[in-house]
Amino acid sequence: MTEHLHTSTQIQLVQRPQGIPTEHDFHIQRVELSPLNEGEVRVRNEFISFDPYMRGRMNDSKSYIPPFPLGETMTGSAVGRVIESRAEGFSEGDLVTHFMGWRDIAQGSAEEFTAVPELGDKPVSAYLGVLGLTGMTAFAGLTKVAQMKDGDTVFVSGAAGAVGSIVGQIARHRGARAVIGSAGSAEKTALLTERYGFTHAINYKEAPILEQLAEVAPEGIDVYFDNVGGDHLEAALAHLNRYGRAALCGAISVYNAEDPLSLQGPRFMTNIVTRSLTLQGFVLQDYLQYADEFRAEIAPLVMDGTIKDDETVVEGLDQAIEAFLGLFEGKNTGKMVVRI
Amino acid sequence: MTEHLHTSTQIQLVQRPQGIPTEHDFHIQRVELSPLNEGEVRVRNEFISFDPYMRGRMNDSKSYIPPFPLGETMTGSAVGRVIESRAEGFSEGDLVTHFMGWRDIAQGSAEEFTAVPELGDKPVSAYLGVLGLTGMTAFAGLTKVAQMKDGDTVFVSGAAGAVGSIVGQIARHRGARAVIGSAGSAEKTALLTERYGFTHAINYKEAPILEQLAEVAPEGIDVYFDNVGGDHLEAALAHLNRYGRAALCGAISVYNAEDPLSLQGPRFMTNIVTRSLTLQGFVLQDYLQYADEFRAEIAPLVMDGTIKDDETVVEGLDQAIEAFLGLFEGKNTGKMVVRI
Repeated sequence: MTEHLHTSTQIQLVQRPQGIPTEHDFHIQRVELSPLNEGEVRVRNEFISFDPYMRGRMNDSKSYIPPFPLGETMTGSAVGRVIESRAEGFSEGDLVTHFMGWRDIAQGSAEEFTAVPELGDKPVSAYLGVLGLTGMTAFAGLTKVAQMKDGDTVFVSGAAGAVGSIVGQIARHRGARAVIGSAGSAEKTALLTERYGFTHAINYKEAPILEQLAEVAPEGIDVYFDNVGGDHLEAALAHLNRYGRAALCGAISVYNAEDPLSLQGPRFMTNIVTRSLTLQGFVLQDYLQYADEFRAEIAPLVMDGTIKDDETVVEGLDQAIEAFLGLFEGKNTGKMVVRI
Repeated sequence: MTEHLHTSTQIQLVQRPQGIPTEHDFHIQRVELSPLNEGEVRVRNEFISFDPYMRGRMNDSKSYIPPFPLGETMTGSAVGRVIESRAEGFSEGDLVTHFMGWRDIAQGSAEEFTAVPELGDKPVSAYLGVLGLTGMTAFAGLTKVAQMKDGDTVFVSGAAGAVGSIVGQIARHRGARAVIGSAGSAEKTALLTERYGFTHAINYKEAPILEQLAEVAPEGIDVYFDNVGGDHLEAALAHLNRYGRAALCGAISVYNAEDPLSLQGPRFMTNIVTRSLTLQGFVLQDYLQYADEFRAEIAPLVMDGTIKDDETVVEGLDQAIEAFLGLFEGKNTGKMVVRI
């Protein structure tokens, strides 16, 4: 065993960001690892996941998961290989997923790690994306929260992102009449229609989303999957048909506002009453009971190439903070991961 | 049979109100009634119902029920007695409920009328209120849409109104931890706590509802029943706890806005995501399957006085328009009906 396996390079949150995070909010710390106890495993992370929801955990506010503690290493999804094991069922080289991201070497009790099958030609980072929490979020939000039905017209914001791109493809696979996606560049809107099979793509930077949505959905929408909030949610509220359902997964447009709660809300709220709409915020934790259903339906479509997933891969933990900040500038297409 | 039984005095909508309706939007018309055909019934209305939702039907806009046609008699709940019958199962003197309100004499096919039991000492107008669509709206919204559970803290806006006062009492009966109601006068807030058993009452004209709700619900609310919209919905969004549910029944604060859809929405929308909230608009038509459950649970509580219902009774069809307009000035306590 070489020296570097006894230390872990980890990224800690040292102050709570005001608005857009900066490098000063983080600190890279080398941590000495204690020898493994009985029942513990040591893993070298191959990929760690960066997701917009992590921005929320950097605030000290009431939410569905507690804030990241200051002065401690942050957490998040990761996939890696066992490099040392004192736990039954884990051997060196085993591929595992776990939640100790934001570091190169992870170590802990065996229960914190899940052994997963090799993927052949497919990079194992898929376990952080389409085959992991990202894909499940798309699946649960679309099919369980918004209860998408065959023949629905579906609108997805942030559609070139990790979750959005999967939502659109599942919607199409499940028989949507039309799938409309929004994104913030011509490259991304081209991806939506050419690669992910969206029926219509809207570049929200070109004209008000409200008007563009009216053009491509003259008969309204039935389901809205929201990753963006703000003007996108407003446009959806304006165009949702009777009994329309909106699954609210994220609001990346406001995560970095200094006081997101003070932002004035969308117009068209009275449509909720007059059209019997349902708006439902959700987090994946409450839908984990559908994991088997998700894997059974989606994994084969991913492995045979029906569902296409893209990644933005950043190399090296020393690029991690910049990569994370890039999420809020739309620098990623698909899932943002760091390769270690 | 006397002459007046062959004519019906009816209120028609002659132009679509801009903002607050005025008398010029309506016309009182005497209509000659044709002799009854086989299978038809003629009913003298005793009470007709006035409800805020009718304002929406006066607009020419996409909603859950079609707009009132111009130049035709409006419709709404009514209770009356059969004065002539050529239909099996209906005899002179039978008490019936139906949907041909806004007139003194109603006539039509027997299927349009429902025979209902006499109520003894209780005025039959209860069939327009607590025992009718009003009570069912309260029951369905609270128990089916918002899925109120034992131990929930419940907030009801427009709580001295027909629906709101019943919501509060059902919530209390179903084991709410606390029931908070808002109303617009000291007389009404006194009613809430002294007569309807609300735990706390807020006079929204005294101070911002947001601050007052924070004071009386320091641990937040779990269920919100919205009759008002606007600042009340905003206050609820600010204080709903994780997994909170809001049943959106009405938005009387904006019904008379010239362009309600253009009104800026509430702050605190991002709480929907971070706290996994559900906002659901509903109309009673979609919950009629719970009518039996409603009657079985609520009617005994009404008849034994556990649930108290109040009415504002206006005398005479010639006062009807003024009575309707009074709904939007908060002139009613409880159900607004016109006695004919």
